[in-house]
Amino acid sequence: MQEEGVDALLLSVGPDLPYFTGYEAMPLERLTMLVVPRESDAVLVVPRLEAPRVEERPEVFCVDAWDEVDDPVARVAALVDGARSVAVGDHTWARFVLAMQSALPRAQFCAASHVTAPLRAVKDADEIEALYAAARSVDEIAIEMRERPFAGRTEREVHRELMERILDVGHERVNFAIVATGPNAASPHHDPADRVIAKGDVVLCDFGGTMHGYCSDITRMFAVGEPDAEVRDAYAALRVAQEAGVQSAQVGATYEAVDAAARDVLVGAGFGDAFVHRTGHGIGMEAHEDPYVVAGNTTELVAGHAFSIEPGVYLPGRFGLRLEDIVVATADGPRRLNDAPRDLAIVA
Amino acid sequence: MQEEGVDALLLSVGPDLPYFTGYEAMPLERLTMLVVPRESDAVLVVPRLEAPRVEERPEVFCVDAWDEVDDPVARVAALVDGARSVAVGDHTWARFVLAMQSALPRAQFCAASHVTAPLRAVKDADEIEALYAAARSVDEIAIEMRERPFAGRTEREVHRELMERILDVGHERVNFAIVATGPNAASPHHDPADRVIAKGDVVLCDFGGTMHGYCSDITRMFAVGEPDAEVRDAYAALRVAQEAGVQSAQVGATYEAVDAAARDVLVGAGFGDAFVHRTGHGIGMEAHEDPYVVAGNTTELVAGHAFSIEPGVYLPGRFGLRLEDIVVATADGPRRLNDAPRDLAIVA
Repeated sequence: MQEEGVDALLLSVGPDLPYFTGYEAMPLERLTMLVVPRESDAVLVVPRLEAPRVEERPEVFCVDAWDEVDDPVARVAALVDGARSVAVGDHTWARFVLAMQSALPRAQFCAASHVTAPLRAVKDADEIEALYAAARSVDEIAIEMRERPFAGRTEREVHRELMERILDVGHERVNFAIVATGPNAASPHHDPADRVIAKGDVVLCDFGGTMHGYCSDITRMFAVGEPDAEVRDAYAALRVAQEAGVQSAQVGATYEAVDAAARDVLVGAGFGDAFVHRTGHGIGMEAHEDPYVVAGNTTELVAGHAFSIEPGVYLPGRFGLRLEDIVVATADGPRRLNDAPRDLAIVA
Repeated sequence: MQEEGVDALLLSVGPDLPYFTGYEAMPLERLTMLVVPRESDAVLVVPRLEAPRVEERPEVFCVDAWDEVDDPVARVAALVDGARSVAVGDHTWARFVLAMQSALPRAQFCAASHVTAPLRAVKDADEIEALYAAARSVDEIAIEMRERPFAGRTEREVHRELMERILDVGHERVNFAIVATGPNAASPHHDPADRVIAKGDVVLCDFGGTMHGYCSDITRMFAVGEPDAEVRDAYAALRVAQEAGVQSAQVGATYEAVDAAARDVLVGAGFGDAFVHRTGHGIGMEAHEDPYVVAGNTTELVAGHAFSIEPGVYLPGRFGLRLEDIVVATADGPRRLNDAPRDLAIVA
């Protein structure tokens, strides 16, 4: 906070609050906000009815419970009275930001990520262990799916099965379970629909959740019966691109260089226009977080950074492919946390 | 917008965007924003990779897809250039609000709910039908649970079963499934834990999801074996309080009067201090939305308003009780959408 000239940090919904305190705000209309003044003790302003959810940790913060007829924004404003620079958590709802600005007209507001993102980006050994445990759990699901029948089921049915398996293997929350089949997979963030899977389809499954506070995220591809030559060729290029992305993820490299390493392979194979997104995103307590593996990001990899490497090939009206692992940058080179087989699995 | 003096409306994550357009923004770091200038056509600024998710509806909006290296905030700012008053969706992430304010330094920002909440609060016949269908679905679950065994299972196990049943009966999303047992139920928003349910426990189940875009929300109580006199007496008072709240929900009454109608019963029965929250909340595309049934809310009920009536009694260290139905205000008086039995069900 001192380096960034921030007088007070205000954390509400989103991952910053549990990262620093272990307590997660409910994403509802009653304001929860941890007020962290630079020079005094932190106070958690919390709705009275949620105060019993807080396992009080006086070494971390005091609790200030507000009643239904109180104005929580006024409580927060009183706690940071005189602050000139206020950093507010990136996911805080607009209504609360605007109300805080009205209550503190002389303060300058900035995004808390200036303070929090560099801290969260470098994972310690416990965090990497948590990411690894989450990754192994979804690996288990990806491996099982190689033996499951796909033909005759709808995208929604497979989606539902994935959600249940994510909880079964120990996640407390499902974050997403994309099941995109045939031409639907050309939409990278396709919502599961009632399309019935048939022989000849290629199926994209991209799924993950939160386990002990840390996220998993994996993408694997399944072909119902032998795929045709066009799919095989595109998938072969994708595997090389993903491997190139992973191998380029060396401490000291820039994120834009990692993006380029994967992208160059697909451009060389004639799929440059079909790779419509960045190569990856950071991962931790949030499914997508800093740093992003994207053109223009000149940030350098640091040991302890964790991120996805997930190039894709999307051919509208035909099919879509993506292959994704979570990788941690280490002094000894990139460490993949996922190790489910990366071939295009042939399923029934 | 004219009445509120708003030149441009900016809608991102949250229910306003699907309410007006049918499209829901992904709650991720890539900005989706519908720009609605007062005097010209609406434009949906959307990440390129999510553009295929948009079923383009040119009668509602044009699509402006941005690439990974573009600045979406600059795109939005260019579309509202010259606007003096900008209303931004209540759930929009702080990082985007702050970036928009930097990009439009001469604009005044306010919460979009000034424009959208009064429109969303009055439900039309189709919306009430959707709320009713969702309510009947969770009624079905509440009725089934009366025949299920509770003793020997953990809160987490019952929570998981509720989540699965909410999806089974046709919801596309689980919003919450509170299972609070014994003394844990004295925490109104208790997170399900590993506590094993035993004979003598009273169990609070408060659950709901989103079905065809509209939310369900019900609370029913279960006693494992015959409850003691203290629980029976408190529950009897709670039923009277809930009935009084429902019956007071007449068009033209104020929301604070509805809150008082339920609260007065519990105060009279000696449980005033144990009822630590407001009586209810509006419901629609959002689980909690305007109007709120709370002291100080002098808004009057209008036909088509939908809201919960859910008084509670919380006795720390002992037990907690809540009873909740969704109610619609009509010219003919209050209409309950839930009709699962409201007695304290005795279960095994």
